[in-house]
Amino acid sequence: MFITFEGIDGCGKTTQARLVADYLGNHLPPHRWLATKEPGDWSKGKMLRQILLEGELAHPLSELFLFLVDRCEHLDEVVMPALKEGRVVLCDRYVDSTLAYQVWGRGLPRQEVEALFRWCAFPRPDLTIWFDLPPLHALDRMKRRGSVDRIESAEPSFLHRVALGYESLWLEDPGRICRLDASLSETELFARLLPLLQKAIGR
Amino acid sequence: MFITFEGIDGCGKTTQARLVADYLGNHLPPHRWLATKEPGDWSKGKMLRQILLEGELAHPLSELFLFLVDRCEHLDEVVMPALKEGRVVLCDRYVDSTLAYQVWGRGLPRQEVEALFRWCAFPRPDLTIWFDLPPLHALDRMKRRGSVDRIESAEPSFLHRVALGYESLWLEDPGRICRLDASLSETELFARLLPLLQKAIGR
Repeated sequence: MFITFEGIDGCGKTTQARLVADYLGNHLPPHRWLATKEPGDWSKGKMLRQILLEGELAHPLSELFLFLVDRCEHLDEVVMPALKEGRVVLCDRYVDSTLAYQVWGRGLPRQEVEALFRWCAFPRPDLTIWFDLPPLHALDRMKRRGSVDRIESAEPSFLHRVALGYESLWLEDPGRICRLDASLSETELFARLLPLLQKAIGR
Repeated sequence: MFITFEGIDGCGKTTQARLVADYLGNHLPPHRWLATKEPGDWSKGKMLRQILLEGELAHPLSELFLFLVDRCEHLDEVVMPALKEGRVVLCDRYVDSTLAYQVWGRGLPRQEVEALFRWCAFPRPDLTIWFDLPPLHALDRMKRRGSVDRIESAEPSFLHRVALGYESLWLEDPGRICRLDASLSETELFARLLPLLQKAIGR
């Protein structure tokens, strides 16, 4: 069972991922689940994450290729071995992030990006939770948090395009992608998320 | 004028690149030429080079994508600005390395790799010098040198396939690629190289 969390920066998915990890930790033995994230959560991932998030890259395709490297290595080293052991794998960001950010956000052609996904043979998630939050609301949260990196600090219209990307992806594939209203409080949001998770992991 | 140096590891091209840089330094003002190399010769290139050359990557496409990022950034940051200023640019390794190593060496499909080259809009070199050396001869040189990295330490048949790749590329495009016999001594080799260079830069 491969579950991904998606949404624009500031949507609260990282907090929810932590709450879910706490829940799984209390209800499943450690060898039955794994919580991980993109980018960076593999042996050399910190080096790659540093290149991605600090300072501007000159070429529009560099960011895409770095995210693909990160995903290829993260899948081979972390996600696939865990799935093969039958674990529930929760991943904070995955292919929908690349589509929303690189295609809708940065304007790369979707056809070419999806052709690369197929070449890389990225597995399809069984369930994707989309934490839907209006971009202005997300920007407010990020400003209050005070930790804004290069990608998050892009102009507001960028985040609007990314949000539109997530909405389009959800409309195309509502069987895989579940939309949650991320403007709810942390506890209310978790209360909506939990039944989806319990159903997915068969509890 | 964009000139690239190519050949398998241990072929002596880096030494020749240094001799050429010495020659250019004595015959052209500094703002008229630039000697550079792939991978790594740009602002964040050292970090990327470290990921590439230390230890094994798990996924067969990761190496390709990292080399593409390196090339995109190196071109935008270093090569293209110098070419726009009218400089002679000498680059140690470029697209032919990716074809020889990733396609012939690692077995990636050429059509997909060249489609990515077109998407990235990599400029074609005006002149490419291929330093042709038999793989066993190159391996001997590398062993004597004592500095063998991950890619160089691949099995001998790998280097044979890469050498075959260079030969195939030369046969396809002899108008751009000049073959030099790299089993000659450093000074003899440089004596053959110099007239090609002088003709290319119009001296």
